[in-house]
Amino acid sequence: MTDPLAPRPEHKFTFGLWTVGWQARDPFGDPSRPALDPVETVQRLAELGAYGVTFHDDDVVPFGSGDRDREEHLKRFRAALDEAGLRVPMVTTNLFTHPVFKEGAFTANDRDVRRFALRKVMRNLDLAAELGAETYVFWGGREGAEVDVAKDVRAALDRYREAIDFLASYVKDRGYGIRFALEPKPNEPRGDIFLPTVGHALAFISMLEHEDMVGVNPEVGHEQMSNLNFVHAAAQALWHDKLFHIDLNGQHGPKFDQDLVFGHGDLLSAFALVDLLEAGGYDGPRHFDYKPLRTEAFDGVWASAAANMRTYLLLKERASAFRSDPDVQEALASAGVPELSLPTLGDGETAARLLSDPAAFENFDADAKSRRSHGATRLDQLALEHLLGAR
Amino acid sequence: MTDPLAPRPEHKFTFGLWTVGWQARDPFGDPSRPALDPVETVQRLAELGAYGVTFHDDDVVPFGSGDRDREEHLKRFRAALDEAGLRVPMVTTNLFTHPVFKEGAFTANDRDVRRFALRKVMRNLDLAAELGAETYVFWGGREGAEVDVAKDVRAALDRYREAIDFLASYVKDRGYGIRFALEPKPNEPRGDIFLPTVGHALAFISMLEHEDMVGVNPEVGHEQMSNLNFVHAAAQALWHDKLFHIDLNGQHGPKFDQDLVFGHGDLLSAFALVDLLEAGGYDGPRHFDYKPLRTEAFDGVWASAAANMRTYLLLKERASAFRSDPDVQEALASAGVPELSLPTLGDGETAARLLSDPAAFENFDADAKSRRSHGATRLDQLALEHLLGAR
Amino acid sequence: MTDPLAPRPEHKFTFGLWTVGWQARDPFGDPSRPALDPVETVQRLAELGAYGVTFHDDDVVPFGSGDRDREEHLKRFRAALDEAGLRVPMVTTNLFTHPVFKEGAFTANDRDVRRFALRKVMRNLDLAAELGAETYVFWGGREGAEVDVAKDVRAALDRYREAIDFLASYVKDRGYGIRFALEPKPNEPRGDIFLPTVGHALAFISMLEHEDMVGVNPEVGHEQMSNLNFVHAAAQALWHDKLFHIDLNGQHGPKFDQDLVFGHGDLLSAFALVDLLEAGGYDGPRHFDYKPLRTEAFDGVWASAAANMRTYLLLKERASAFRSDPDVQEALASAGVPELSLPTLGDGETAARLLSDPAAFENFDADAKSRRSHGATRLDQLALEHLLGAR
Amino acid sequence: MTDPLAPRPEHKFTFGLWTVGWQARDPFGDPSRPALDPVETVQRLAELGAYGVTFHDDDVVPFGSGDRDREEHLKRFRAALDEAGLRVPMVTTNLFTHPVFKEGAFTANDRDVRRFALRKVMRNLDLAAELGAETYVFWGGREGAEVDVAKDVRAALDRYREAIDFLASYVKDRGYGIRFALEPKPNEPRGDIFLPTVGHALAFISMLEHEDMVGVNPEVGHEQMSNLNFVHAAAQALWHDKLFHIDLNGQHGPKFDQDLVFGHGDLLSAFALVDLLEAGGYDGPRHFDYKPLRTEAFDGVWASAAANMRTYLLLKERASAFRSDPDVQEALASAGVPELSLPTLGDGETAARLLSDPAAFENFDADAKSRRSHGATRLDQLALEHLLGAR
Repeated sequence: MTDPLAPRPEHKFTFGLWTVGWQARDPFGDPSRPALDPVETVQRLAELGAYGVTFHDDDVVPFGSGDRDREEHLKRFRAALDEAGLRVPMVTTNLFTHPVFKEGAFTANDRDVRRFALRKVMRNLDLAAELGAETYVFWGGREGAEVDVAKDVRAALDRYREAIDFLASYVKDRGYGIRFALEPKPNEPRGDIFLPTVGHALAFISMLEHEDMVGVNPEVGHEQMSNLNFVHAAAQALWHDKLFHIDLNGQHGPKFDQDLVFGHGDLLSAFALVDLLEAGGYDGPRHFDYKPLRTEAFDGVWASAAANMRTYLLLKERASAFRSDPDVQEALASAGVPELSLPTLGDGETAARLLSDPAAFENFDADAKSRRSHGATRLDQLALEHLLGAR
Repeated sequence: MTDPLAPRPEHKFTFGLWTVGWQARDPFGDPSRPALDPVETVQRLAELGAYGVTFHDDDVVPFGSGDRDREEHLKRFRAALDEAGLRVPMVTTNLFTHPVFKEGAFTANDRDVRRFALRKVMRNLDLAAELGAETYVFWGGREGAEVDVAKDVRAALDRYREAIDFLASYVKDRGYGIRFALEPKPNEPRGDIFLPTVGHALAFISMLEHEDMVGVNPEVGHEQMSNLNFVHAAAQALWHDKLFHIDLNGQHGPKFDQDLVFGHGDLLSAFALVDLLEAGGYDGPRHFDYKPLRTEAFDGVWASAAANMRTYLLLKERASAFRSDPDVQEALASAGVPELSLPTLGDGETAARLLSDPAAFENFDADAKSRRSHGATRLDQLALEHLLGAR
Repeated sequence: MTDPLAPRPEHKFTFGLWTVGWQARDPFGDPSRPALDPVETVQRLAELGAYGVTFHDDDVVPFGSGDRDREEHLKRFRAALDEAGLRVPMVTTNLFTHPVFKEGAFTANDRDVRRFALRKVMRNLDLAAELGAETYVFWGGREGAEVDVAKDVRAALDRYREAIDFLASYVKDRGYGIRFALEPKPNEPRGDIFLPTVGHALAFISMLEHEDMVGVNPEVGHEQMSNLNFVHAAAQALWHDKLFHIDLNGQHGPKFDQDLVFGHGDLLSAFALVDLLEAGGYDGPRHFDYKPLRTEAFDGVWASAAANMRTYLLLKERASAFRSDPDVQEALASAGVPELSLPTLGDGETAARLLSDPAAFENFDADAKSRRSHGATRLDQLALEHLLGAR
Repeated sequence: MTDPLAPRPEHKFTFGLWTVGWQARDPFGDPSRPALDPVETVQRLAELGAYGVTFHDDDVVPFGSGDRDREEHLKRFRAALDEAGLRVPMVTTNLFTHPVFKEGAFTANDRDVRRFALRKVMRNLDLAAELGAETYVFWGGREGAEVDVAKDVRAALDRYREAIDFLASYVKDRGYGIRFALEPKPNEPRGDIFLPTVGHALAFISMLEHEDMVGVNPEVGHEQMSNLNFVHAAAQALWHDKLFHIDLNGQHGPKFDQDLVFGHGDLLSAFALVDLLEAGGYDGPRHFDYKPLRTEAFDGVWASAAANMRTYLLLKERASAFRSDPDVQEALASAGVPELSLPTLGDGETAARLLSDPAAFENFDADAKSRRSHGATRLDQLALEHLLGAR
């Protein structure tokens, strides 16, 4: 019998190379850990039960490498993947570390930079396709501004759309079978980043020529940096059928991007998120985009990788028990939660018909209806007690 | 010669009846001012130079009024409008004060409440059309939750869409010539409100059957409650061609909804906003949705109404001087701001052609390009000095 | 054998009358529940296992009551307390609801208002003493400003100090045996409130003539409204020996004051808080200052009261298991947590001696020391798993 | 006649070497500017009209330098200061960049690290004294935690106090004539930093043996990262007679530490701050602790340095005009602002006497008093119009 809390490939846990490989340089501090060889990362994550790894181009091949060097790096990396049996379900581009992107990439005021950014992505898309990636993430960390009058936001959105549509067309033309996922973030490193939330990204996508192949990659901490409800954001993305990928981690509200271990931030929200993902039809990777604390050496790095997966599995177990508890089912019914799935209008009900229904207005007793108790506290406490393993 | 700082109807300044009429009851305090007769409000605002007033149904006709009482109230109100020469460019519904809406209106778990909410809106839409309103605002203040597991967010969005599409269809069928504007807000009075930002609302709109007639009504303070950049939000709404209406006020960051006088919050942002609206093709009402401070008696109420308009006109004057200053134009050019309007790709440039342009990648000197200075600080300081009247 | 999760008087759980009695009026909504008779509150809370109740003067005796009416109200209330066996360990004054306090109470610009505020408190202090209260809380909800130039902050702090010292002297002169506890809050209802955090209040206290009898009453949600770490705040208050009382509830970061059930906000923080209080020498009341959700009728009100206490007891059980787990003890030792209690200097070590210790500088190997792993992630995960009942 | 907007040494403008010298490495990006020689910095700032420079030990002498190398670096630096005529009014220590401090410095769990930190400060205190610095700043950027259970906060405060008192004693024994200023910050780089606000630092100081020589160095953006009112914080520090130094910059609310140019964040607050400092008896340096935007090359760096000073002088001019405007004086009087300086109690008034004054309670007409209008909006608008140069 298998241990339900032991991570296995079928759980689809994935990690960015840049997560465990973060050297822990921060705005006020030098690195506290040496660089990690991607080959070692692949081996260690496989041992821990992961399904795959993801990477930015520059995580595997240093910025500015020529084709020959690049091929050397990739060869070792591919071999490690094969040996470990890890997949690469997602790839992304680094359009933020090199200072050439300091004023933007797709939306840089400087057109040459924009053209270079396109080429950098195209080169990496070819690799992503070759490695069998299904998703290509775009995090526009430098697409933004600190000074309102120094950026024409509408022109920026024009250029952003131009870039995404051009690259989507490229992927389609090449038959790569890749979908795009835009990753919103409100700020950091820019003072304000364009497409700051899941909502703004979904809206932007609706304006694309190739909107069919573009979705979102929401990150727990990024929405929470704006103190927005991440479960609501993920649910709206699912509602749009645009939850193409997800970044799991933790955050303590509006401050710098903490990238804590999943669950080590707002735990009740993490519980509701796992409940949503497991019951809600999301079948993509459970991707951890976090940073091991700077206080930790490599033992802590690997402990943190394991903690992400174990916490997810614990929450999955708790959510499952919550959903199958008859008391919970009764409480949900009493709160009217399933009633919200009933359309407000009758089948084919017209305006005229609604206007002629006195129960809807003339005879509606608002005061009496106001007295209905909605049982939300009871549901919150049931969730909390299931989370605590106390039921 | 007219005083450019004196508000006149052509400036299209409008006020909600509920703004100057706010009795200053807050979560910890009883009212500090008596109720204001809408008739007096109309007269006073006309004297101050406003263009129009807006209202929730219940601002003019008490909740639950029968048809006869309603007609009495409306008659007096219409007469006051006619006498003062004020327009009613926007109307909205109160779906939040009465406790019947405590768990939601269009997205209440209780279907009867949802049906009543539709009827309440329909009744008021008829009035809006009769008064010549062009815009109908939907602020879903009770559409949300405090407890994640007590609400099925996707079902809620289904119901929200059902309601808006049904009402849009009603308006079209009746030939009312009204457009809808959704007003986002992240929280308060609910712990989390659905469609929390301009982005989420724009995304939602893209899923509507009648999306052509639905836009947004962003409010300065509502985005700033999430510490998002309001100028970026308004610009993205304009980019979507969905800035149907706007609520101007002030806020000091993430805290309760302050509804300060326009400009009395983040002043540099207010400057950039007026610059955007005046230059950006927005020609709708400049609608103040604010609350006179609870410390003020009626003298302060009317002073605050005047302060909103005067501040707007001052900022307009400053923004105009900023745009026409040759130093600013030179600084913008040097920063590459107009360059962002150039497409990244040449006319008809294909992927193949971009791939064969060595200037875009092979010969691109990233390090050299990194040294370009972008002049954002200079622009910020030029804006600040124009704002201060110091140039 | 007693159920460790059943609340009993020795747990010292107390509730404000205004908590369960909140009628659920909010800034955008009318009450959703009728008023609750304090007598009924006392009975119900006693049945649920509470130790005591607390109140503002106006919760028991309506504002402006004459002496005779006041005595009538108090008589009924005292009888209910006696019958139920509930204590009144804390009392406070309402200096915020009536609009006379709209511009402040102890720090109102209007001197007459300040004098009235003092008298209102003195009257209620006499009652508090008579009821055997040990603590008198001061929440200065109206002591603040929206407009920087409309308030002389230093004069306000002078008046605040004058008021607290005068009242402290009154209590001492009367021999009341009452201590004062100041309750900080950053904003709401005022735009900015004086003494916005536990730190500012502790600092202010250090300037008082009667600082010996004045401490703080921190509230979980109030610090979290500024996204500050509440556990750190409570620990600093304990370090100052000034944690005289505590308000337990929940909050989802910087937004309006939510007053959620304890644990229904940041659950990991609530765990660490209970761990601190239980192990840290705090023996005062565990006072719940929360608001039952507006969506709930009275069944939900009493369920929420019970939820506060049950959650506290669950967290206490989990924290106790965490502390007694040998793995945790080993992890704490390995992380050096107990090492922080060792003074940095040796016993009587002078500057000269430290300067002559080469191990402290000349021979200190900073790079080698940098490689120590601090095991914080492991501790976080151990805490999380104990919290989840998963160990 | 001198230009009132031209910075001159008597304005006491100072800059940290690390400000203009910031190479613009951020959490997601490599440096965009080369290192700046401190000698050049000194020359350039003198040309721009600055009064002095400040530095961390490692800004002038690389970490780990032996005594001989150190003397070489210092010699060049001293010569540059002499030549430029710049003062060094403040010095501080870098206890955060090297990973040896990753888990803390004065409050590291590791005692050896704590001892090293003390020695590093002592070495630099000797230099500070030699250079004639009056103030020594302590920013404990690594004194904090990410994980509540991984740190004993009370032990940490014990060690913090031990360190500050030991160093204060060292300074006194050596007769250095230096005062200490603690600089609070809520988070970044640590998840939560101890002494997160001006309030917490002032409270901590009250517990020191050498509290007489320890004050605070508040930074505009640090308080605003918690969305606290910086003007209130500075005023409370003045009230405690503890505003020993000040860090001026800009910030857009709760997000990463932006370190914008002074005034380029919340401009109305900057106006009120300059008004407070100029009128409030603060005569220390106006120290800019900011970061030139990463988008800028050196032209932008020096433009930003100049912008800080020019903005301060502009605001000073505006504040002075505001204070001398008779309309403002009348509005302040009408709002009762000066009335707050009147003690609430009469000279020698006892509790008994207050109790016997019927005007204070029995005859106090709360409803009538509630109707007083406080004129705060009028004052806000007068401030705004003076700020805009519109009066």
